[in-house]
Amino acid sequence: MFNELGPIDRSNLGDMPVEEFRHHGHDFIDWICDYFSEIESYPVLSSSEPGAIKRRLPGAAPEKSMEMEKIFADFIEIIIPGLTHWNHPNFYAYFSISSSGPSILGELLIAALNINAMLWKTSPAATELEETVLEWMRKLLHLPEGFLGMMVDFASVATLCALIAAREKVKDLNIRVKGFPRTENAPSLCFYCSDQTHSSIDKAAIIIGVGLENLRKIESDKDFRMRTDLLEERIKEDLKNGHKPFAVVATIGTTSTTSIDPIPEIGKICRKYNLWLHVDGAYGGNASILPEYSGLMDGLEYADSYVINPYKWMSMTIDGSLFYFRDPDFVEHAFSIVPEYLKTVESQHVTDYMNYGIQLGRRFRALKLWFLLQYFGRDGIVNRIRETVRLGRLFQSLVEENPDFEIMAPAPFSVVCFRFNPRNETLDEAKLEKLNVRLMDEVNNTGKIFIEHTKLKGRYTLRFAIGNIRTAERHIRSAWKLIADCAEKLVHD
Amino acid sequence: MFNELGPIDRSNLGDMPVEEFRHHGHDFIDWICDYFSEIESYPVLSSSEPGAIKRRLPGAAPEKSMEMEKIFADFIEIIIPGLTHWNHPNFYAYFSISSSGPSILGELLIAALNINAMLWKTSPAATELEETVLEWMRKLLHLPEGFLGMMVDFASVATLCALIAAREKVKDLNIRVKGFPRTENAPSLCFYCSDQTHSSIDKAAIIIGVGLENLRKIESDKDFRMRTDLLEERIKEDLKNGHKPFAVVATIGTTSTTSIDPIPEIGKICRKYNLWLHVDGAYGGNASILPEYSGLMDGLEYADSYVINPYKWMSMTIDGSLFYFRDPDFVEHAFSIVPEYLKTVESQHVTDYMNYGIQLGRRFRALKLWFLLQYFGRDGIVNRIRETVRLGRLFQSLVEENPDFEIMAPAPFSVVCFRFNPRNETLDEAKLEKLNVRLMDEVNNTGKIFIEHTKLKGRYTLRFAIGNIRTAERHIRSAWKLIADCAEKLVHD
Repeated sequence: MFNELGPIDRSNLGDMPVEEFRHHGHDFIDWICDYFSEIESYPVLSSSEPGAIKRRLPGAAPEKSMEMEKIFADFIEIIIPGLTHWNHPNFYAYFSISSSGPSILGELLIAALNINAMLWKTSPAATELEETVLEWMRKLLHLPEGFLGMMVDFASVATLCALIAAREKVKDLNIRVKGFPRTENAPSLCFYCSDQTHSSIDKAAIIIGVGLENLRKIESDKDFRMRTDLLEERIKEDLKNGHKPFAVVATIGTTSTTSIDPIPEIGKICRKYNLWLHVDGAYGGNASILPEYSGLMDGLEYADSYVINPYKWMSMTIDGSLFYFRDPDFVEHAFSIVPEYLKTVESQHVTDYMNYGIQLGRRFRALKLWFLLQYFGRDGIVNRIRETVRLGRLFQSLVEENPDFEIMAPAPFSVVCFRFNPRNETLDEAKLEKLNVRLMDEVNNTGKIFIEHTKLKGRYTLRFAIGNIRTAERHIRSAWKLIADCAEKLVHD
Repeated sequence: MFNELGPIDRSNLGDMPVEEFRHHGHDFIDWICDYFSEIESYPVLSSSEPGAIKRRLPGAAPEKSMEMEKIFADFIEIIIPGLTHWNHPNFYAYFSISSSGPSILGELLIAALNINAMLWKTSPAATELEETVLEWMRKLLHLPEGFLGMMVDFASVATLCALIAAREKVKDLNIRVKGFPRTENAPSLCFYCSDQTHSSIDKAAIIIGVGLENLRKIESDKDFRMRTDLLEERIKEDLKNGHKPFAVVATIGTTSTTSIDPIPEIGKICRKYNLWLHVDGAYGGNASILPEYSGLMDGLEYADSYVINPYKWMSMTIDGSLFYFRDPDFVEHAFSIVPEYLKTVESQHVTDYMNYGIQLGRRFRALKLWFLLQYFGRDGIVNRIRETVRLGRLFQSLVEENPDFEIMAPAPFSVVCFRFNPRNETLDEAKLEKLNVRLMDEVNNTGKIFIEHTKLKGRYTLRFAIGNIRTAERHIRSAWKLIADCAEKLVHD
């Protein structure tokens, strides 16, 4: 069908010459060193206006090749000013994350090797290193024995996989083959989480065809933990009304306040009603590496699946979520589709990870985690996470010392929820929201720190999240001074 | 709840010191240069036995930190021999992919910056560069105007997103909110692809709750292209039987033979029956950058969504699929869930990419594609892909010249399907399969090349896939010589 090939320029084939790569590679490494040395001189939050960067970029790709020097100069001039610097030690928004030396070096090799770890055969070392490193992590995290793990990109995907496996485990249904049944006496699936659970659970409810209406958001208590009395009540009610409960998602470290659902009680309820228990420890689960936090894993003996993100608090570069499951058969049953061109003679004796997830392609993420775990060692990671928790408590004590501020939720990890509420004024919720929005904008507009907000049972709340490997006590103290000074100025104005 | 923090070692905080990073970084760059210079001295396929690598790794992470030199030495000694070298110019299995200098350098910066491109605000430059580069690619690929694009990790995810959006577009259903309806007169969803379509479509049928049974695999013609007469027949039959067709997945470059479905005819049928048309150009779609292949985009004016993987044939490092869709409202309607802590004032005027997909977290993949497109330029990419097509035709002609081999399917791109069928013997299918399995194993066991197989309408077939940026004519000629020599030896034995 396509007969006439155009002309081929023989001088213009192959990759970048090795010596050129060496030259740029060394330059890039040096630039990264400068970047990290000068990271505090960058504004945390970009002051770029919507569309400003797009306008500076050409409307079409260049026809001819460009020198890497020119590309890099544009990167410095156009892209860098438009970045929000997640590596900045004063990044306190969302969950504060950071890259780290060993992880960046791991990514460099991952990119160079460029293997696809879909099958054991497509790189035995990738699969076996992944199995090994996930078992290392299971032990480090005090996760009970009997969990098998794999690396996926993000926790949203791990949770989605867990819920699909849970859906397929429902007796007398076979959605995998038949789809959802269209008979009025077919079971109407529903599942449970708290009103604090991450939005990825809502997305999963949509994707798997259960629907948002059938995701029951169980009210949380005053400390934002799922109320197990209400959970059991709702399950009973659903059963009475002919619904078919199939799963509960519990969280260790919810996104707004980092509250911890009572896993053991939830686990017992799941056991009683034969529900799949998925535990989302994306952020908080990192802390279970500390002996003093190993109690977080209490109740995990009831769990069918678990997810934890080392890129959230262990300074692993994104992406990479650890998805653990107890019974690989259920996960494999849900996902395995092996076309002829991917059949291998080894498959009886090895793990073909593509059979346990959504994506066929898989990056060699285990390598960077292996680098990171060995470079810092268990004690090094424990030490760093422990210091972050200490800084969180320090920030909380600074807030508590100021009578114009209030703490809005318990802070079990290193995220502090607080707000400005000047003692000499009596402000209603609407005014408090307005005031705190202004405070947040003021401090963020300085470019010196970046904080974000949430709403807790209708109350506008500021969040101060610590997790960056470069954040030290001096950053916390000066960030707090900035917040308090801005607040004082707001009142005086 | 967690009161007593353990001891903190102040000497053991922060990241790898900058000067240490510089030292290792330079060493790693030099190693990568050596790796690429010596790539042909590695066996393509690892000869590692199942479990052999795992046995060489400790059962638990080290307690104390390890020197990077020691970690790297283990990488060289334990990991490297267990890798299948996807960068080897004699890797002809699956779809042959490769990393490239500009893309590796891009990944290095992506890892160092470690931003999460979930919202515009979380890095304006990441979102705007992604919008820009995807528009560049749209033009380069001759994709019609009016498609908006985003980068996801793999085509499996893009296809899944497309099918969820398609499912949510079905009138009188609201699965997003209500889940699948449980009434006998509810529409029974079904969708269509050919019997050559990628296994990710089957996975999507499972995940979205439609079920494998309701994915109709339309028979392909003798050239492995979807038969549109059968497609329309089946749609009519489904409608008559009360089913509700909602989508068709057509492919440009199927996985087994790289056949091209007749997109314009399929598009017209989709228009007629109001079906979502998703086109999977993951591999073959790369070729539409060649003017002589721009006809591949004929019929794309009917498509609602499209996916193409530049990591498949443009030497971009994995991962990174370009997911294009025509009407962002449908995709956003399916996926958008914005919790309070992610609400931003800018969201009216900017693109928040997290609202168009499954994952909340997003790597800054646009950066490496931007590097790659500028470094090679359009002409450079055209030239390289064109050369690969030429090499594919060369390999095909070598096979055709040998009367003991047969071509098993048309080769529109750079993948050749063939098998050994010695002229002086009359072998049945079972014996031909056995013979070709032996031939494949023999050539792969030399470590010199790596090819894989498929089955075409029951016939065992070898696949020779060319796509690596380092593959030159001499590789093709010697690979063919190896295959032909091994075959001759097999007959003599």
